[in-house]
Amino acid sequence: MDTRNLIGNNYLPATGKKFRAADPSLGIDLPGDFYAASISEADAAVNLADKAFNEYRSLGGDKKAAFLRGIADEIKALNDIIIERAMGESGLPAPRLQGELNRTTNQLYMFADLLEEGSWVEAIIDTAIPDRKPLPRVDIRKMMVPLGPAVVFGASNFPLAYSVAGGDTAAALASGCPVVVKAHPAHPGTSALVGGAIKKAAEQTGMPGGVFSMLYDDGYAIGEALVTHPKTKIVTFTGSLKGGMALMKMARERDEPIPVFAEMGSVNPVVLLPQALENRAEELAKTYTDSITMSAGQFCTNPGLLLAVKSAGLERFKKTLGEGVANVGSATMLTSGICANFGKLSKERLAESEVTVIAHSDKLNSEKINQSLAVVTEITAAAFLADEKYKEEVFGPYSMLIVADDIAQLEQVLGSLHGQLTATVMADADELPKYKSITDKLANLAGRVILNGPPTGVEVGNAIMHGGPFPATSDSRFTSVGTSSIKRFVRPVCWQNWSEDLLPDELKIANPLKIWRLVNNEFTKE
Amino acid sequence: MDTRNLIGNNYLPATGKKFRAADPSLGIDLPGDFYAASISEADAAVNLADKAFNEYRSLGGDKKAAFLRGIADEIKALNDIIIERAMGESGLPAPRLQGELNRTTNQLYMFADLLEEGSWVEAIIDTAIPDRKPLPRVDIRKMMVPLGPAVVFGASNFPLAYSVAGGDTAAALASGCPVVVKAHPAHPGTSALVGGAIKKAAEQTGMPGGVFSMLYDDGYAIGEALVTHPKTKIVTFTGSLKGGMALMKMARERDEPIPVFAEMGSVNPVVLLPQALENRAEELAKTYTDSITMSAGQFCTNPGLLLAVKSAGLERFKKTLGEGVANVGSATMLTSGICANFGKLSKERLAESEVTVIAHSDKLNSEKINQSLAVVTEITAAAFLADEKYKEEVFGPYSMLIVADDIAQLEQVLGSLHGQLTATVMADADELPKYKSITDKLANLAGRVILNGPPTGVEVGNAIMHGGPFPATSDSRFTSVGTSSIKRFVRPVCWQNWSEDLLPDELKIANPLKIWRLVNNEFTKE
Repeated sequence: MDTRNLIGNNYLPATGKKFRAADPSLGIDLPGDFYAASISEADAAVNLADKAFNEYRSLGGDKKAAFLRGIADEIKALNDIIIERAMGESGLPAPRLQGELNRTTNQLYMFADLLEEGSWVEAIIDTAIPDRKPLPRVDIRKMMVPLGPAVVFGASNFPLAYSVAGGDTAAALASGCPVVVKAHPAHPGTSALVGGAIKKAAEQTGMPGGVFSMLYDDGYAIGEALVTHPKTKIVTFTGSLKGGMALMKMARERDEPIPVFAEMGSVNPVVLLPQALENRAEELAKTYTDSITMSAGQFCTNPGLLLAVKSAGLERFKKTLGEGVANVGSATMLTSGICANFGKLSKERLAESEVTVIAHSDKLNSEKINQSLAVVTEITAAAFLADEKYKEEVFGPYSMLIVADDIAQLEQVLGSLHGQLTATVMADADELPKYKSITDKLANLAGRVILNGPPTGVEVGNAIMHGGPFPATSDSRFTSVGTSSIKRFVRPVCWQNWSEDLLPDELKIANPLKIWRLVNNEFTKE
Repeated sequence: MDTRNLIGNNYLPATGKKFRAADPSLGIDLPGDFYAASISEADAAVNLADKAFNEYRSLGGDKKAAFLRGIADEIKALNDIIIERAMGESGLPAPRLQGELNRTTNQLYMFADLLEEGSWVEAIIDTAIPDRKPLPRVDIRKMMVPLGPAVVFGASNFPLAYSVAGGDTAAALASGCPVVVKAHPAHPGTSALVGGAIKKAAEQTGMPGGVFSMLYDDGYAIGEALVTHPKTKIVTFTGSLKGGMALMKMARERDEPIPVFAEMGSVNPVVLLPQALENRAEELAKTYTDSITMSAGQFCTNPGLLLAVKSAGLERFKKTLGEGVANVGSATMLTSGICANFGKLSKERLAESEVTVIAHSDKLNSEKINQSLAVVTEITAAAFLADEKYKEEVFGPYSMLIVADDIAQLEQVLGSLHGQLTATVMADADELPKYKSITDKLANLAGRVILNGPPTGVEVGNAIMHGGPFPATSDSRFTSVGTSSIKRFVRPVCWQNWSEDLLPDELKIANPLKIWRLVNNEFTKE
């Protein structure tokens, strides 16, 4: 593991402020010294990315695909070393991290396949009509091109799948954007291992130096330097509302404002409909016990709000949920900061007289530190509606049940919520048609609308939408998961009246890449 | 012509500050009293749009298409009245306005066709794979849905095609977003006529009240009230950099930041390559005489910068361009403000010792006021590079020739420019391959790259990209012209594990609308 800052294919001399990774479950330092990058190193990384841009973007899809596959292969070759280090740095258990590593490599393979298939560039061709009246039509051909150097912030809660070689990096590299990663200080060793894998793949597949760089910092200076660098063209971030808003502010106050795709807070409301509660209260309670407490609740899709109308079924649900949550053992949180914040916010909620406790686990593992104990609380809809703070996310194994007097009040609660990543309804098939106004509201509220399943667990594919109205994300028009996430990094360019031989292959009439295109208003692969 | 503010299908009582339209060529008031809307009226318009949203978005594509066609038909029925009023308000000649009216109705028909074809929703379906290992795949289906109420600012330079029923309104209504138009105070009568046509079409096709509203204001208060209204979800604007930046600031400082698509300034650089100049200097000069001076240069695609290396061919080009421009008669500008600004900026340019004059028309029509006289200036590449102000747009019949010592210096100028709507190269076919580094730079710089044609004249179709890197637009990832401009107004939503009968038709397995979709990674119409 080379712990130094990496610019292009070169590790930099170890200077700058030294820091180490901590094992959050024990509070002890892990091996390896890391060094905060300097502002001039941040400057050099973006400049080199910009220099690499024209060469990298011009490489064929097959070459970029080989690079992405190479990264995945190199990560796989380090599988056990990466998992071990990530366990130490994150406190997450091995099976979860193995799943995340598989997701990470699968994402890279998925984008490689997307590049080879090729249609993602959205090629559109309108050929000339010289004799059109009153004016001739000129030949115009459009396709997506990459924006330029992308700055990717590693996420604390996905040390692999949304970090150094995670979904953002994979999508950016697939699009043709060079990437500068700001490694998350909570898992610098995991970052070093994965960054080394990318470096190796870049060298082996002959990528231009500068297509990938990675810098460390345990503060904010390097992040700011990267976001405000005039050659940075787009920023991606997964984390807190506060962090995302700070980046958005920096990005828009530049001489050239640039897009930030920030995936921020979400409380992921779940509506439990009456008949489903009556018929399967216990089953629902078990599903949500798992969903609320899995990975110490440290998912952006964690179900933080449960909504229901009071009923006998709801009482049974509460009972089973309460028993289940009370028995969930404590779990190590990602960082001491996250744990302290969880403790503070859950304590604040519990101190409110209008908030009652459905369950509070007391299964503390006293051999470890930074432990979270799962909490589920209850509040009336009226009290919830009266205080904005209950809409804020409590990041961790926490959920709040909002009990409405009737469906109208439940709808009022739904209507009061801010934008979400997900919104869920648990319902029996034959009661659903009665609640169309609720299901319509869910689609207005969120990017992903789920029926009869927990919001946790995000399928990575073509149809996924992971994003939603503010404040869930900074721009609801994009997803940060799945093949469509590549669209964050591209813009359309059209060539008018251009010489066929000088056009990109994607736009040549003969369609040498055999990709799907819209040609004179017809979808065709010809 | 009903000159009152319009909310939904109701005209409001005539209150508020009164103003009239002026004929810019004569400085006299035109008939009709208009009244600045109040803040509470702005509030009511957006609230009603929000109320209409759920009903309007749920209408089938065929019904929305009928509405759009109805608008076009009603505009056509008023053809002569609209042209006459628009001539009076804008100073633009009848043939230009007739072309613009045709473009306006064609855009509406184009979006109606797009809705009936239906594939624009980008439906993607990944069906369930219950036996996938290690985890089953759940059924997920995604499509685009409208964002919500859109605020559209009428543009001064396109009183029809980018105003009340222009491209922004047509795209927003097609997407399913209700529209509140802030009418441009330079052409309130034209706005009233077109707004009346939309009202009539909305009534005749049974649209929900609130799908369209239009408010007047000769100041900034109503624009601000509309942009900052909590229920407004997106804003479109075509105009100055200053105006666009002010709207972007308002929109991002809201509790819920919203996207603004602002199409702002562009100087649309044109590179004249040596061999083309040598072989056809006079032909190029004629093309650019027309392009620079057409409609008093009041196009966002006006070629404000010409770039060439010094040569005998360039001298011939200058001579013919100079003779052509000197003979262009003065033309009425859209408003006295625009004319004053043009006069001020062109005077400032001419006063610079490093700027020389290639041509300055003296063909003043002294019977009219607000006349612009075309100007083409010249500067060395070195002097251009030394002063940022020369990169700013002089809106009107103005262009500046930048003379480089050699191709390297010309490339340096290109590399120094900010984002543009268009970038053009005039070249002979056999010299182009030599200049690949220039043509590559053009695609980095702009959204539309043109070979051997003027940038003025924007084809409206599937392949057009009208937009570009900042400051040409606020977000280079979207176009404001053509079918793809609908994408500004939509966001993806995915439905997970949803009941087939409750899904939108676009996402039902049987594909009742027979639209192109991506189903299990295959493009298909089945």
